[in-house]
Amino acid sequence: VIPIVTLLTDFGAGSGYPAQMKGVLLARAPDARLVDVSHEVPAYDVLAGALLLEACVPWFPSRAIHLAVVDPGVGTARRPLCVVDAEGRRLVGPDNGLFTPFLDGARAYALDALPPPASPTFHGRDLFAPAAALLALGAEPASLGPPVPDPLRLPWPRATRDRELVRGEVLTADPFGNLLTSVRAADLPREVASVEVAGRAARWVRTFGEGTPGELLALVGSSGRLEIAVREGSAARALAAPRGAAVVARLVGAG
Amino acid sequence: VIPIVTLLTDFGAGSGYPAQMKGVLLARAPDARLVDVSHEVPAYDVLAGALLLEACVPWFPSRAIHLAVVDPGVGTARRPLCVVDAEGRRLVGPDNGLFTPFLDGARAYALDALPPPASPTFHGRDLFAPAAALLALGAEPASLGPPVPDPLRLPWPRATRDRELVRGEVLTADPFGNLLTSVRAADLPREVASVEVAGRAARWVRTFGEGTPGELLALVGSSGRLEIAVREGSAARALAAPRGAAVVARLVGAG
Amino acid sequence: VIPIVTLLTDFGAGSGYPAQMKGVLLARAPDARLVDVSHEVPAYDVLAGALLLEACVPWFPSRAIHLAVVDPGVGTARRPLCVVDAEGRRLVGPDNGLFTPFLDGARAYALDALPPPASPTFHGRDLFAPAAALLALGAEPASLGPPVPDPLRLPWPRATRDRELVRGEVLTADPFGNLLTSVRAADLPREVASVEVAGRAARWVRTFGEGTPGELLALVGSSGRLEIAVREGSAARALAAPRGAAVVARLVGAG
Repeated sequence: VIPIVTLLTDFGAGSGYPAQMKGVLLARAPDARLVDVSHEVPAYDVLAGALLLEACVPWFPSRAIHLAVVDPGVGTARRPLCVVDAEGRRLVGPDNGLFTPFLDGARAYALDALPPPASPTFHGRDLFAPAAALLALGAEPASLGPPVPDPLRLPWPRATRDRELVRGEVLTADPFGNLLTSVRAADLPREVASVEVAGRAARWVRTFGEGTPGELLALVGSSGRLEIAVREGSAARALAAPRGAAVVARLVGAG
Repeated sequence: VIPIVTLLTDFGAGSGYPAQMKGVLLARAPDARLVDVSHEVPAYDVLAGALLLEACVPWFPSRAIHLAVVDPGVGTARRPLCVVDAEGRRLVGPDNGLFTPFLDGARAYALDALPPPASPTFHGRDLFAPAAALLALGAEPASLGPPVPDPLRLPWPRATRDRELVRGEVLTADPFGNLLTSVRAADLPREVASVEVAGRAARWVRTFGEGTPGELLALVGSSGRLEIAVREGSAARALAAPRGAAVVARLVGAG
Repeated sequence: VIPIVTLLTDFGAGSGYPAQMKGVLLARAPDARLVDVSHEVPAYDVLAGALLLEACVPWFPSRAIHLAVVDPGVGTARRPLCVVDAEGRRLVGPDNGLFTPFLDGARAYALDALPPPASPTFHGRDLFAPAAALLALGAEPASLGPPVPDPLRLPWPRATRDRELVRGEVLTADPFGNLLTSVRAADLPREVASVEVAGRAARWVRTFGEGTPGELLALVGSSGRLEIAVREGSAARALAAPRGAAVVARLVGAG
């Protein structure tokens, strides 16, 4: 079976840094299939990287290896990590919370068995890519270094519910300007009557096409999260709703 | 023979949405070769997507499968489609005009034989990618659903000729700021004497290198269309010439 | 062994032009592994393209073929080239200085044995991609055309040293806003006491993590060059330091 290695970074696809990682991967694991998840994670935004991994990783075969580098602390004491999640998926990158969505029931290993990275500023190329190449060649995660019992977790944005009110917050915007929120489909056990974001009303719909162009909409998006959208427009531009802005969904019937 | 699947969307390469589609493709058709055509089609701009497909698809082997999603109507009643064009090329995506350049002599099939998509907002991942994976595994297009006799066609911008004057319009700009127009090489049966775009004169040349830096040029570009360009500059920035702006080429000799 | 073909252009990844090149490559060399180095080289900036090749090419296996097109003179008399560098790496593209970092000890060949390109404006698709495909299929570089004894070289930015002062210049910025300079690690034979760029002091560190957010830093980056950086910020935005801006490193001890 051909190994798959995905790549996610905040380096910029055209910067040459992802290409250097791919050169290292192909020099060591010539058969690996390389797939870009994203190189446009906002610089140093570990939470945005973690959310993107959460949205994308489950769609790949579980044998895929996920190489992810959003690493403001590169060169400091933060540990390098290989995580094996509860589904057997393998993720390689810095121990800074980037793998938070995958840590329940996971095992993790430091990468101490690898040669120290040549560059103190580019562990993606000099440490994480070689580790992913070893996995692609069949190495056991436990052979890469000692177990890490307590990988770092980000405070994870969730929704809270108080009777008919479900409260959450804005997380990120996608390139269409759709705002993803911390409210998940599972947080909405009944029909939604109305949604308010950053103090403005959004109409609850099932799909973008139900809106009129320009109208502010709320729906469960393809990631299973409540999203705020404008049909054929940008909710990010229409609203002043940065990360952390309040989102409130009111459920129908008080129950 | 290894199947090739190309991808064209307006999702943004770094959004994670193309990666989710690739995960689905590789989970179902592990041998498929995936090639990005573009994920930077302007959001919801079906004509721009259709023009890009027209420019790129012919350069791939005809056995390639082209997965294309520019889909402002996702979740509404617009049909999902597999088109087999006159050359035997297979294209998968929404029936909204995106495949207009390939419809002469084509057969088309709805995708009714596939399970309904899980998400009403992301048919690219939940319907079109699974359909493309089936084709990559050898499925016959006709097995995907019933024939569609009348796929939707966009009004297609063309040139008109009145004696020595060939009139067309600006269509799109490429990243260099070159403006592509609706005038094709075949619309220019004789030498061109002069070109005017949005009321300004452009000098007729054979290649960019003939211009002086900053000069407004007109030439037949690599897509076989009349293009307006500025050598080592951007015609899009130099001119106020949006889609639909008038282009007039005057042929030499009245004939 | 599966051939690897990398691509570097200033076309924009989403423009469709790299996709057309990939279509041509896969139509002729179906087994080739295609890897994007960058399609975001600043338009017409041959030096930026050459620097990116210098940073990326060495990380690929030496059997890889590198197809590179930053070509403001397309369609003029500049020669098309295949370079075989001292390590046996093969590079294909225009003879305009793009391959300067690879020319010491290299052989070079014109591409006269190939059919003339169909389009005078897109040699990347119509001449260089077919040449790279021939190499991927096993053709000898010398079979592509006659030797070129004197490929064009760009004036190459270097550092000069006068006792404890090492002087260089800013070259390019990466997407983080880190400024790469013409000062290489080998130009700094002793510890660095202080660095000045565009008249401002930058603190000498080993890695980004040593800085405080917002502080101007100088370090040897992953490319082996002196870089100017701001931790979790952008030196390019913090400084008015375009290409050519002066960089001065003062070594410790006068020796």
